[in-house]
Amino acid sequence: MTPERCFLAAALCIAALALSAAAAAGQAPGRHISPQRLQAGLERLSDFGRNPEGGVTRLGFSRTELEAREYVLNLMREAGLAVRIDAAGNIFGGRPGSAKLPVLLFGSHIDSVPQGGNFDGPLGSLGAIEVMRALNDAHVVTRHPLEAVVWTNEEGSHFGISVLGSGVAAGVLGPEILDRRDEDGSTVADWLKRYGQDPARLTEARIPRGAVAAIVELHIEQGPNLFESRIPIGVVQGIVALKRWRCVATGVANHAGTTPMNRRRDALAAAARDLLAVRDVVRSETGRQVGTVGYIKAEPGAANVIPGKTEFTVELRDLAAEKVERMWSQIQERIGVIDKEEGVGTQCALTDQVAPALGDPRLQRAIHDAAGSAGLATMDLPSGAIHDAGEISRLAPMGMIFVPSRDGISHAPREYTSWNDCANGVEVLYRTVLRLDTELDPP
Amino acid sequence: MTPERCFLAAALCIAALALSAAAAAGQAPGRHISPQRLQAGLERLSDFGRNPEGGVTRLGFSRTELEAREYVLNLMREAGLAVRIDAAGNIFGGRPGSAKLPVLLFGSHIDSVPQGGNFDGPLGSLGAIEVMRALNDAHVVTRHPLEAVVWTNEEGSHFGISVLGSGVAAGVLGPEILDRRDEDGSTVADWLKRYGQDPARLTEARIPRGAVAAIVELHIEQGPNLFESRIPIGVVQGIVALKRWRCVATGVANHAGTTPMNRRRDALAAAARDLLAVRDVVRSETGRQVGTVGYIKAEPGAANVIPGKTEFTVELRDLAAEKVERMWSQIQERIGVIDKEEGVGTQCALTDQVAPALGDPRLQRAIHDAAGSAGLATMDLPSGAIHDAGEISRLAPMGMIFVPSRDGISHAPREYTSWNDCANGVEVLYRTVLRLDTELDPP
Repeated sequence: MTPERCFLAAALCIAALALSAAAAAGQAPGRHISPQRLQAGLERLSDFGRNPEGGVTRLGFSRTELEAREYVLNLMREAGLAVRIDAAGNIFGGRPGSAKLPVLLFGSHIDSVPQGGNFDGPLGSLGAIEVMRALNDAHVVTRHPLEAVVWTNEEGSHFGISVLGSGVAAGVLGPEILDRRDEDGSTVADWLKRYGQDPARLTEARIPRGAVAAIVELHIEQGPNLFESRIPIGVVQGIVALKRWRCVATGVANHAGTTPMNRRRDALAAAARDLLAVRDVVRSETGRQVGTVGYIKAEPGAANVIPGKTEFTVELRDLAAEKVERMWSQIQERIGVIDKEEGVGTQCALTDQVAPALGDPRLQRAIHDAAGSAGLATMDLPSGAIHDAGEISRLAPMGMIFVPSRDGISHAPREYTSWNDCANGVEVLYRTVLRLDTELDPP
Repeated sequence: MTPERCFLAAALCIAALALSAAAAAGQAPGRHISPQRLQAGLERLSDFGRNPEGGVTRLGFSRTELEAREYVLNLMREAGLAVRIDAAGNIFGGRPGSAKLPVLLFGSHIDSVPQGGNFDGPLGSLGAIEVMRALNDAHVVTRHPLEAVVWTNEEGSHFGISVLGSGVAAGVLGPEILDRRDEDGSTVADWLKRYGQDPARLTEARIPRGAVAAIVELHIEQGPNLFESRIPIGVVQGIVALKRWRCVATGVANHAGTTPMNRRRDALAAAARDLLAVRDVVRSETGRQVGTVGYIKAEPGAANVIPGKTEFTVELRDLAAEKVERMWSQIQERIGVIDKEEGVGTQCALTDQVAPALGDPRLQRAIHDAAGSAGLATMDLPSGAIHDAGEISRLAPMGMIFVPSRDGISHAPREYTSWNDCANGVEVLYRTVLRLDTELDPP
């Protein structure tokens, strides 16, 4: 054996030993976070509200979520984080920084929709805690103080107020939500008390401008783009603008047996044409815009009565608010034509609108670079769903990391992201946090 | 003045006197029935269950209808009729005939739909009593015994069982209906007791085959054909065949924000195309066939979720059962194509079917001739609505007389038939009964 060969063999041997040690410690080579620890936590969290058919029902403000919150609080404490709960019930786990700087905030939520999945929220929440543990393992000291956050009632499945906790933190929601009552007669205030909070101090949960250096949220995509392209990391360009309308088509209710076909003013037939027109308009240009009619009700709603009234919703989303406006103009024009042809009158009223929340370019770059350094390919894409980070983007630069959703399914028991994809996302979050710590607020 | 002139003057004078006497008695020339008496009765009956906005809510098996029944019973007694109530609560007012023959039966119902009109049922019911009074006035003795009938719970707005009384009389419905419970917890049996009947004897209300010489029902058209053609009398060719299906389109529920347009399997979009296909198929041939989708429900039914499931009803009606079948085949074919294009699966199950009840040709001729003798134009047309007479057609020849409905509106407070049209209908009923008395069961 020549000395060169010996040197090579020794190097290979040492490398193999290092790999084997990393594997024994549960770390893939090049990963700072522990996939095993992450998976164990996510699996344990799935026990809270587990459905017999898989997935969870763990609504915000429920006994089940209360138990899950205790589990998360314990994880944070075990990770040595300084735990606090704000007046909106948001949970923060702090890790100090070396400098007097605004906080780097990252996390998600742990509430679910009814019959929801195990990844929407939990990945970003437990992922944030895993980042803290990995930083501890590596004895990293950051310049910025860090906080892992679990926001309250993101889904809004309870009380119909989505992104409740982050909305209060962003100052968008206030004491007007306290009296909102659920089907059981409980109010938001009642639930905040059960969370150990004083509802009268709700506005104290508002985060002052300048207090947060950046907000980063890791989340499953909930759509098929990454999964179908086999790309592990999505860099979110922004959260789309959203508008919702409630439309009512009014015709004439009449006897289904005695009213000739050519004498009908059928509000449901008109609405059917309207909703297909919505789809046509949305499909008529390229891009990632979406439009949905998710609710319809025909009245009186009997098999033997021609509907005199039909109510339906229209929802349009795109990263560009102007495109939403342009599509809506075209839809209104189409509805007007259909109204005339059907002898029906249709009125639409705006019920919801969310401005787009654009990803900060510095954060998008940091996520790209973080993924690149871990050898992971990225795709730029908008988020069609709203997220807590979008609320906080009103007061701090925002970035989001997406990982693939199998078959694009979410809000359902079949929601699934492979453990490897989960670990990739958390690793990119770890590296993004460290990059931002270096790049933001330079000394 | 020549004798001829004198004779003419006298004749004219006598004719004028007769007209004046007839007018004083409330009879238009050539009318045997009294429009004033008819109108007074209908107006009084409208007090029972009167809605503030017009029309009545007088559901079958209600306190309101119970009071209205008392009023009708009194009218029958005042008309000298032999009153009896059968075990299904049907009210009969008999007038004897001179021969031992089966009975000539005519009448309708006095229950209404919620927010119904003043003419659907009451006209045929009080019209039948008016015919009896007019026969009394003219001292007519018929060969057949006559019976005016008021059937129980025709609309089925209570207990969901339409043509209940006539269905029991025809032997189509039996004791299985007795336990049907309403929202207040009362059963059909409870209500029959309140009507003074013994539910255990329900089947005694069955009319034996051969007991009825003919059934004639006067009714408002509930459609626009007579009103628009300005023709006062409709001769019903038959009551249409009816089939109803419940269809369920199953796609995939998914997030409205994150699911690209080309990846959706939207059950509501598919159902919208299905229901427009129903209309296309029904419109695609000439004739009076009708098809209706009156009910639709999309699930989960949230503005921000693509519907994974949509349920809807399909109803088809035509006088020819074969045409209903042919249309349904075409609709199923169209739904199959839409299913493939939309990535959706649609299953339809038959929920209701009513065989056509054809008008007896002898009765149609008698109605034509009766109208002709009164100087009233007629139109042959099918009945798109079901009627009590259709049930009784299973055991006796059936005929129906229609009068115009203003703007074709029925089952609504705006339901209206002019008093003159009402009187024309009752006059034709009077003349039809006398013609049938002569023509049926010849000695």
